[in-house]
Amino acid sequence: MRDVSIIGIGQTPVDEHWGKALRHLAADAVLAAMRDARIDRADALYVGNMLSGVIAGQEHLGALIADFVGLRGIEAFKVEAACASGAAAVRMGYIAVAGGLADVVIAAGVEKMTDETGELVTSGLAMAADGDYELPHGVSFVAINAMLMRRYMYVYGVAREDFANFAVVAHENALNNPNARFHSPLPPERFVDAPMICDPISLMDSSPIADGAAAVVLCPTEQARAFTRTVRIRASAVATDCLSLHDRRDPLRLDAVEASARKAYAQAGVGPQDIDFFEYHDAFTIMAALSLEASGFAEPGEATQLAQDRAIALGGRIPVATMGGLKARGHPVGATGVYQIVEAVQQLRGEAGGSQVAGARLGMTQNIGGSGASVVTHILEACG
Amino acid sequence: MRDVSIIGIGQTPVDEHWGKALRHLAADAVLAAMRDARIDRADALYVGNMLSGVIAGQEHLGALIADFVGLRGIEAFKVEAACASGAAAVRMGYIAVAGGLADVVIAAGVEKMTDETGELVTSGLAMAADGDYELPHGVSFVAINAMLMRRYMYVYGVAREDFANFAVVAHENALNNPNARFHSPLPPERFVDAPMICDPISLMDSSPIADGAAAVVLCPTEQARAFTRTVRIRASAVATDCLSLHDRRDPLRLDAVEASARKAYAQAGVGPQDIDFFEYHDAFTIMAALSLEASGFAEPGEATQLAQDRAIALGGRIPVATMGGLKARGHPVGATGVYQIVEAVQQLRGEAGGSQVAGARLGMTQNIGGSGASVVTHILEACG
Repeated sequence: MRDVSIIGIGQTPVDEHWGKALRHLAADAVLAAMRDARIDRADALYVGNMLSGVIAGQEHLGALIADFVGLRGIEAFKVEAACASGAAAVRMGYIAVAGGLADVVIAAGVEKMTDETGELVTSGLAMAADGDYELPHGVSFVAINAMLMRRYMYVYGVAREDFANFAVVAHENALNNPNARFHSPLPPERFVDAPMICDPISLMDSSPIADGAAAVVLCPTEQARAFTRTVRIRASAVATDCLSLHDRRDPLRLDAVEASARKAYAQAGVGPQDIDFFEYHDAFTIMAALSLEASGFAEPGEATQLAQDRAIALGGRIPVATMGGLKARGHPVGATGVYQIVEAVQQLRGEAGGSQVAGARLGMTQNIGGSGASVVTHILEACG
Repeated sequence: MRDVSIIGIGQTPVDEHWGKALRHLAADAVLAAMRDARIDRADALYVGNMLSGVIAGQEHLGALIADFVGLRGIEAFKVEAACASGAAAVRMGYIAVAGGLADVVIAAGVEKMTDETGELVTSGLAMAADGDYELPHGVSFVAINAMLMRRYMYVYGVAREDFANFAVVAHENALNNPNARFHSPLPPERFVDAPMICDPISLMDSSPIADGAAAVVLCPTEQARAFTRTVRIRASAVATDCLSLHDRRDPLRLDAVEASARKAYAQAGVGPQDIDFFEYHDAFTIMAALSLEASGFAEPGEATQLAQDRAIALGGRIPVATMGGLKARGHPVGATGVYQIVEAVQQLRGEAGGSQVAGARLGMTQNIGGSGASVVTHILEACG
C-alpha cells in the first residue's frame, strides 16, 4: 500500500447558487482543485452526492462532471452514503491511489438543495433514515435527532442551553471563512430564544441546507514531493451501523463513530490527545456532542461540559468546526465531507486565516451519514 | 497489485417482486453469494443502484444492506453510474481487493422498478441522460436510443428487421435460465409485428424493466485457491463519455465502449478473437449492435449482419447474452451489471445448463450507463 497525499483543494462558497446548474457548481470546485494542484489530467473522478436524483432529476454525475471539467473519458462514478457521501468519495479515491490502481484521483462532493421547496428537501434527507421502520411513523430527520437530544438531556441531566456553545463557536469560526454560509456572530441569548423546530431542537441547534461543492486531488506521497503545500492522509477509515435508532445497542453511543475513529487512530498510530483540531459533523448540536464522545474527546455525557468550558473553541483543548462547521459554514449534504477535508488542509497548510489553529500538525475529519449509520474518518498531517 | 478472483455468486430471479422490500431482495442475493463462497464475513460491501431514491424513497443502501445481511459495522457505500451502477460496484470491489485495502469484498446490485408507475420509472431512467441539454427537449431514454437506431439504419442502409436476431437469440438463451424474466421463444415474425414504442424501436427491441438483485464475492486469487470453483478477473476497465448524444464525435461510435474494451484487452493481454462469450448491454437492439462494433467484434455497420448470420447464438463465433441478456433475462438497471458477471461466472464454472458455451475459458462482460457515457468492461477467466 502506498502513502497518499492531498496536492490540491477547491471549494465554492456555501450559499444559494440559483444561477448555477449542478455541473457548474461542481466544476467550479474541481477546476479550482486542479489549478491548486497544477494538474491538467487525472486518472479518475469520484463524486459524492446524495440528492441530485430527487432534487435535480439528474443522476450519472460521474461521467457528467468528468466531461464538463475537460476530463472526458476517465473513470468516474458517484458515491453515496447519505450525508457521508462526500468523505466516502474521498475514501474511494484514497483506496484507488493507496492500492496503486490510479496515480491522480479527484474526489469531489456537490449538492444543490435550495432550488426546491423545503418539503422536498426534508423528504429527500429522510432517505438517510430507515424507510421501512422509521419514516412510516412520521419522523423526519430532525425528529430523529430531537429524540436523541431529548434522551441525552434526560440521561445525563443537561439542559438545552448547555448545547449553546456548539453553535456559538461554529458561528465565531465562520466569521473567518469567506466561503461560509453565515458571517454573523451568534450571541448565547439568541441560541436560547431561537424558534423551536422539533423540541428540543431549535433553529440554532440545526445546520442549514445549502448549495456547494468542494474537491481534493490525491496522489501517492512519493509523487506528491514534486508539489508544494501537500498534506498526507495518515488514516482513512469507514464503519457502518444500522440506519434505525431503535435497533442500536444504545442510541446515545454511536458505535460506527467509535469503530471508525478507533480504526483511524490505529492506522495513524495516534490517539485523540494527539489531534490538534477536529472537523466534526455538527449537523445538529446533539450530533456534535455524541461524536466528540464516541471519538474519545469526552467521556459519555461530558461533551456539553467541553462546550461550556470552550475547550472546543480556537485555542481550546480540541478546536472543532474551525471554519464554521456544518452549523455555520453550512451543510450541502453530499459536499460536506469534502469541505471538511478541504478545510483541514487549509489548517495544515497554515492558510486558515483568522481561524488558524496555531501550530496545527494533525487534524481529524469525520463525516456522518444518517443518525450515525455511515461514518468516514480521516486523519491528515502537515508535511514539511 | 494483487490478482483478484470471484469466489461466490448469488442472484434472485428477475421478476416483479412486489412481496419483498428492497433490502430483502438485496439480502437474498448477498446471502446466496456468501453461502456460495462459504464465508460469513467480509471487509466491505459496495452496492450498485440507480433508482432507490426516486422509487423507494430510500438512499443509504450501503449501511442498510450491510446491516440487514448480518455484516453491521463493515465499510459499505452505494455506487452509481446510471445503468452501469452494478458493474461499477464490482469495479470498486476490484480496486479495494487488487490494491490490498480489503481481502473479502461483496459487490452487489439491486433495483426495484415495478412498484411504481411506468411514468415515474421513465422519468427516473431519464436521469441517465443529460438533464440540461437533452431532457428539456422532451426526449425520453428510449427516444434517445430511437434516434441512434434511426441514424444507424440511414447510415448503413439496414432495415428494422435486420435487428431481429439480437432479440430472438436473447429469448432463446433465456429459456435455459431459471432466473430470467421471460421464458418464451420469440419467433422472428413476432419481432416484426411488435408494437412500436418509439419509432423505429418496438417493444421487442427493448429490454424490460424488472426487480432483481445479484452479488459476487471477491478475494485475492492467492487466497481464492482455498475455495473451489473460482473465476479470475483478468481485466477491469472503466471509461466515460459525455452524457448527451449531440456532443459526441460520432453518435454511432461509442467512444467509451471502445476505450473501456481496449483497456480491458490490454490488461488481459488478449483480443476480441480470444473471447469465448460476451455478456453485452442489450438494453435496446441498437445498443447491442453498437457495443459489438465498438468492442471489436464487428466492423462499423456490420453488427446486424453478425446477428443475421447467428454468429451471436450459442455455438456461433461470439455468443452473446447467453443467459438471456437485458432483453430476456431482464434489466433491473442497478443490478444488471452484476447479473452479467454472475452469469459469466456460471459459464466459466460450467454451470450454465442448456446455455453452456462449450469449453468457455474467457468471458467478457460490459455494462453501459446512459447512451454510452459510462462503460465498465470485465474479462473473466476460468480457473483450473
